[in-house]
Amino acid sequence: MPREPKQDRSRATRRRLLEATIGCLSESGWAATTVGVVAERAGVSRGAAQHHFPTREDLITAALEFMFDTRIERVRTEVFEVPPGVSRTEAVVGRIVDHCTGDLFRAALQVWTAAAADPALRQLLVPLEEKFGRVSHAVAVEQLGADDTDPVVHRMVQATLDLARGLGLADLLTDDSARRREIVKNWAAQLDSVLGESPSRHASGLPAR
Amino acid sequence: MPREPKQDRSRATRRRLLEATIGCLSESGWAATTVGVVAERAGVSRGAAQHHFPTREDLITAALEFMFDTRIERVRTEVFEVPPGVSRTEAVVGRIVDHCTGDLFRAALQVWTAAAADPALRQLLVPLEEKFGRVSHAVAVEQLGADDTDPVVHRMVQATLDLARGLGLADLLTDDSARRREIVKNWAAQLDSVLGESPSRHASGLPAR
Repeated sequence: MPREPKQDRSRATRRRLLEATIGCLSESGWAATTVGVVAERAGVSRGAAQHHFPTREDLITAALEFMFDTRIERVRTEVFEVPPGVSRTEAVVGRIVDHCTGDLFRAALQVWTAAAADPALRQLLVPLEEKFGRVSHAVAVEQLGADDTDPVVHRMVQATLDLARGLGLADLLTDDSARRREIVKNWAAQLDSVLGESPSRHASGLPAR
Repeated sequence: MPREPKQDRSRATRRRLLEATIGCLSESGWAATTVGVVAERAGVSRGAAQHHFPTREDLITAALEFMFDTRIERVRTEVFEVPPGVSRTEAVVGRIVDHCTGDLFRAALQVWTAAAADPALRQLLVPLEEKFGRVSHAVAVEQLGADDTDPVVHRMVQATLDLARGLGLADLLTDDSARRREIVKNWAAQLDSVLGESPSRHASGLPAR
């Protein structure tokens, strides 16, 4: 049975508001992200916005879930291609790092920082972050063709995700992209020297170095 | 000539206010850090606090300089000792990472996040961060006994500082210390495999691995 157009419009409005929330968090910060400001940014009347999200807390809670769903969906479904002249490992590391330099990461950073001073928000956030961490790790392992049962490989993949967050932070106030490219290239070479020894990579026919 | 006791008291009060600002940023966040809240935390009357810092902007500006001076002083003057049973490289990496998990880092994170949405604050912050970055890198190179003219070594030291920031971020909402210890150990071994090839370490008699 086809959906009612009215219901479609309502869903589209909700999505526009949630996308505007991410943009607003990323550009204007935590405190400035209110239902009114988000409604204006989304081009939605304040009344319609309040129909979807009666309070700021409702908006923020829905936006957190939307952010995590979007981040996980992006990590999971991204069509992964290795550009010519770049090693597979460098392409994977580059992708992981890219995920820490966009609007979604900047919005998440605003939320994390607010949660550091807000126990209720922290409680909401921690299980979402744990889930996201597990998915990110599993996807990185798969794309690298790495043997995650090897403890050294496991730690290096974790360190790659930590490095990516640190590089995201370094890009917050100034454009750090040129330095970041060099770090990614170097890190990938280091990662390769560890992954090269992993049996699963040899088995799957991926280049060892 | 000895200082006037009154001047000493005034300096001590100022310092107490600046230390309270760091504590307040770290625990309560950017928006909650006002002259009134900081005065109460420092046990200083509101009048005395306003004598030192008439506006919130005065307090924040002074606190930023104080934070950077404190961070640089700590990095520069720390007596560096290698604990028994730990490699020198692991001790250095551990120290760098420790600097990203305390109150100072958490306070800095609040400031960075606020600056992401505040161009005037960003302008104030960027030169301070650049100076801090240069000092941190130079001290890390010295403590590692690394040959920073080798481009691979240079990038690996930079990546260590980026990794440390990422690990600091991962510790913001939950205690990540057990995982962090393993990452530090693993990364130090990786770093050693690169530094071992550096001529300056051999020349200075540091262990190659």
